[in-house]
Amino acid sequence: MSPEEFRQHGHAAIDWIADYWASLEELPVRSPAQPGDVRRALPPTAPDAGEPFDALLDDLDAIVVPGLTHWQHPRFFAYFPANSSPVAILGDLLSSGIGAQGMLWATSPALTEVEQVVLDWLVRALDLPETFLSDGPGGGVIQDTASTATFTALVAALHRASGGEARITGVSAGEWRVYGSSQAHSSLVKAAIMAGLGEEAVRLVGVDPHTQSMDVDALRDVVAQDVAAGLRPLMVHACAGSTSTGAMDDIVALGEVAREHGAWLHVDAAWAGVAAVCPEHRQHLAGVELADSFVTNPHKWLLTTFDCSTLWVRDRTPLVGALSILPEYLRNRASDSDEVVDYRDWHPQLGRRFRALKLWAVLRTYGLDGLRAHIRDGVELASYAADLVRADDRFELLTEPVLSLVVFRLRAGDEATMAAMEAVNDSGVAYLSHTTVEGRMAMRIAVGGWRTSRSDVERTWRALQEAAEP
Amino acid sequence: MSPEEFRQHGHAAIDWIADYWASLEELPVRSPAQPGDVRRALPPTAPDAGEPFDALLDDLDAIVVPGLTHWQHPRFFAYFPANSSPVAILGDLLSSGIGAQGMLWATSPALTEVEQVVLDWLVRALDLPETFLSDGPGGGVIQDTASTATFTALVAALHRASGGEARITGVSAGEWRVYGSSQAHSSLVKAAIMAGLGEEAVRLVGVDPHTQSMDVDALRDVVAQDVAAGLRPLMVHACAGSTSTGAMDDIVALGEVAREHGAWLHVDAAWAGVAAVCPEHRQHLAGVELADSFVTNPHKWLLTTFDCSTLWVRDRTPLVGALSILPEYLRNRASDSDEVVDYRDWHPQLGRRFRALKLWAVLRTYGLDGLRAHIRDGVELASYAADLVRADDRFELLTEPVLSLVVFRLRAGDEATMAAMEAVNDSGVAYLSHTTVEGRMAMRIAVGGWRTSRSDVERTWRALQEAAEP
Repeated sequence: MSPEEFRQHGHAAIDWIADYWASLEELPVRSPAQPGDVRRALPPTAPDAGEPFDALLDDLDAIVVPGLTHWQHPRFFAYFPANSSPVAILGDLLSSGIGAQGMLWATSPALTEVEQVVLDWLVRALDLPETFLSDGPGGGVIQDTASTATFTALVAALHRASGGEARITGVSAGEWRVYGSSQAHSSLVKAAIMAGLGEEAVRLVGVDPHTQSMDVDALRDVVAQDVAAGLRPLMVHACAGSTSTGAMDDIVALGEVAREHGAWLHVDAAWAGVAAVCPEHRQHLAGVELADSFVTNPHKWLLTTFDCSTLWVRDRTPLVGALSILPEYLRNRASDSDEVVDYRDWHPQLGRRFRALKLWAVLRTYGLDGLRAHIRDGVELASYAADLVRADDRFELLTEPVLSLVVFRLRAGDEATMAAMEAVNDSGVAYLSHTTVEGRMAMRIAVGGWRTSRSDVERTWRALQEAAEP
Repeated sequence: MSPEEFRQHGHAAIDWIADYWASLEELPVRSPAQPGDVRRALPPTAPDAGEPFDALLDDLDAIVVPGLTHWQHPRFFAYFPANSSPVAILGDLLSSGIGAQGMLWATSPALTEVEQVVLDWLVRALDLPETFLSDGPGGGVIQDTASTATFTALVAALHRASGGEARITGVSAGEWRVYGSSQAHSSLVKAAIMAGLGEEAVRLVGVDPHTQSMDVDALRDVVAQDVAAGLRPLMVHACAGSTSTGAMDDIVALGEVAREHGAWLHVDAAWAGVAAVCPEHRQHLAGVELADSFVTNPHKWLLTTFDCSTLWVRDRTPLVGALSILPEYLRNRASDSDEVVDYRDWHPQLGRRFRALKLWAVLRTYGLDGLRAHIRDGVELASYAADLVRADDRFELLTEPVLSLVVFRLRAGDEATMAAMEAVNDSGVAYLSHTTVEGRMAMRIAVGGWRTSRSDVERTWRALQEAAEP
C-alpha cells in the first residue's frame, strides 16, 4: 500500500466508522447471530493473492456487522459501558501509525514520559493521593485491563510480604490469604489462581444485604481466625463499585484491617473510579490514601478506547522488585542510570504500545470540564431511569442506584424478570444484562455510552414496560 | 466531536501518519532525548477546557516526535522488527471504531468467530498441526504478547499436571521444574515468578556453543536428576528463534523428553514462527506436532500492528480448566450451550478487543503471496548484510545468520564492538542492539521492517565501517 493508497483507504476507513455510527440507531443492539453464522460465511483458507482493501470493508458490512453486538450503540446498557470516543480512536490510530514499543524508556522515551505525565494528570483530576505521582515513591502505569492490574498488584503484594522470597522459591500452598467481598470481581479469584495461590487462598467475605458492601466485622473475624490458624493475610481487596450492583466497600475500614496485619490494600474501582473527576462523586473513594494500589479503567466510562486500565501504586519498589528481569539484550545506559522508569517491570508483558496517546487525546480534547459533563450525564440518566422504575408498581429497585447503574426487577419474580429482559434484548431495541442480588434475579441498566440520550432511556423503558405486560 | 468533525480530524490523523512516515528518512532512528525532556515540555495538569484536536497534532510534532525512537524507520534494526503496516493500522482503526468487547462469544459473536477463522487460516498457512484447528480438540487465540502466551501456557500446564489441584489449593514451592535453554526468552523466568513457581523452578540448560541450541543431553541429565530428587517436570520450553542469536532448539528431541516425563511442551517461536508462511522456512519448526502449545507474533515480522501474538494449544481442556470462572453476570445461553468458545477463558484478561480484524486485514490484503515476499525480502537482506560482514576483515559473524537476523562483532574486541555500535546509534543513521554470545559482546541487525530496502542495509553498513575506523 503506497502512501497515496494509505491516505485514500484511510479516509475510507474513517468514513466507514462514521457511517457505522450513523447506522447504529437502525441496528439491533445485540447481535441476532447464531453460533457458526459468521464462521460459515468465511472461506477456510487465506487467499494467496492479495485482495483490494475495499473487499474487507464490503465483508465488514455483509458478514461482520450482523455478527456484532454494538457496544457503541446508544441503547447498549449491558455490563458496563466501554466507550470508544472519536478522539480516543484517533489517538489510538496515531499510536498505531507511530508503531513504537515502550518496553523500556530507552526504546522510545516519549512513550514512557507522556504516560507518566498523563497519569499524573489523572491523579490530580481524580484527587488521588500524592504518593501516586511519578516523582514520588509510587507511580502509575497503563495496563490492558483491571484483571491484569489486580493480578499485578497481587504479585507485588506477595513480593513485599515474602521479603522477596516468593519470586525466588515460589509460593507455599496454604500459607497466604486474600480477602475480598462476595461481590468482588471474578478477576480476584482468577488472579489468585494464576499467582499460584489457588482459589482456597481467597476468602470471600459476606456483605450487608442492603448496600452489598463488605461486612467489616465479618472480615475482622475471618482474618482473626486465619491468623490464629497460622495463615498470613496477604491482600485485602476493596471494591469501589461492584460489577453486580455498584456496591462500595468501606475503604477506610478495610484499610485499617489491612494495616493491622501488614496486608496489601488493593482498591478496584475499575468502573466507578473515573467518576471522581467530579468532586461530588469522590466520597466513594474516601480512604484511598490507605491503598497500596488502585485501579480504574478509562476504557469503561472515561471515553478512552479499550484497552486502557490505569493502575497506581503508593510504592513502586515491590512492584518492580517482583517483575524485573534484565537480560543482556535489554541493557542500556538509561536503565543503568536509574534516572528513568522501564514500564516492562510494571506489568506481566514485555512489549507495550503507546496507549497513553489516546488517553492524552481524551484529556486534552474533552478537557476536565468535558469529562465531568460526560460523567454527570450518565449519573443523571441513571437517576432518570430509576425514577421510571419507581413510578411503575410492577417494578422495584433492588438497590439504590449507584452513579450510573440501576439494578431492578419485576415484582412478579425471577422468571418474569428474566423473560422481560430477554424480550427486550431479543427485540434489538436495547441490550441489558442481569445479575443476582441476595439470591434474586435482577436486570441492570448501566448508562455511560457517549451517544446515549434521555430518549434512549425512554425508548428502552417503554420496551421493558411492554415486555412486562401480563 | 460531531460525525463531520470526526471525518475531518480523522482524515487529518491519517495524513499525519502518512507525512510522519515520509519524514522518517530525515529523522534520527534512535531518539536523542534525555531523561525528562518530554516531561518538562508538558504542563503539570490536564486542561479544564477542551482544546482543539489540532493542538494535539502540533504537540505530537513538537514534543513527541523528537522523543520517539522510530520503530517503523527503514533503518531500525534493533531488537526484532515490530511491523505496523498500513493495512494493519486501518484494520485496528476499524476495530476501535466498532469498539466491541469479545470476552464472551455472546458479547459480540463476530469477534470470536473471525478470530477462530483467521487463526485457522494461519494454522494452514504456517503448516501447523491440525490439532490446532478450532474444530478439533485444540484451537488458537490472540494474546497481547508472547510473554502472556508463555505465562498462560504455564498455568495450563500446571492445571494438567496437577489434575486440577493447583487452581484449588495453589502450588507447593519446590515441587515443580520448568526447563528452557540459557537462551530462552526472559519471559520464561518471569512467567515462573508470576505463576508462583519461583525462579528456582526454572532450570536453564546449557547450549551448543556454535548453534546456541539447547544441549539435549544436558537436558536429559538435569531432568533425570530432578526426577530422582522427587521433583516433577512441568514444562519444557523450546525456543524456535532466540532473541539473542535466533537459535533454534531441536523441537523433536525436546518433545521426546517432555513426553517421557509427561511434561508440557511449549514452543516459543515469537519472532521466527511466522517465517513458516514460506515452505522453505519451515524446517525450524520440525517437531511442532509434539507441542502442547505454540506461540508466534504476527506483530513482529508479519506486518500486523502490535499487539497480536497468536497462541495455539493442542487441547483446550487444561487451558479453559485453569482459567474459567463464571460469575452470574457473565452467564448466557450460548455459553451454557457449549456450542461456542468464550475467549476470556483462554488468557489472563477478561475484556478483549477485536484484534483479529487487523490480522484478517493483513492476511487478505497482502495475501499469502505478499506475506511470503515480505519474509523473503527480510531473509535476503540479512543474507546480504552477512555478506558485507564477511567481506570486511575487521568484522566477524558470531553465528551463522538465522532467517533475517545477523549477529557479528569487531575482531578488535568487546570495547571496539560496542563503541562502533553506539557511534552508529548516536549518529541517528541506524539503530542496532547488542547481545552477548559465549561471553563476547556482539551487535545484531534484525531486518524485517516493511520499509527497509537494500540501500538501507548499505547505508547502515557504511556507517558501521566508518565507526570501525581506528
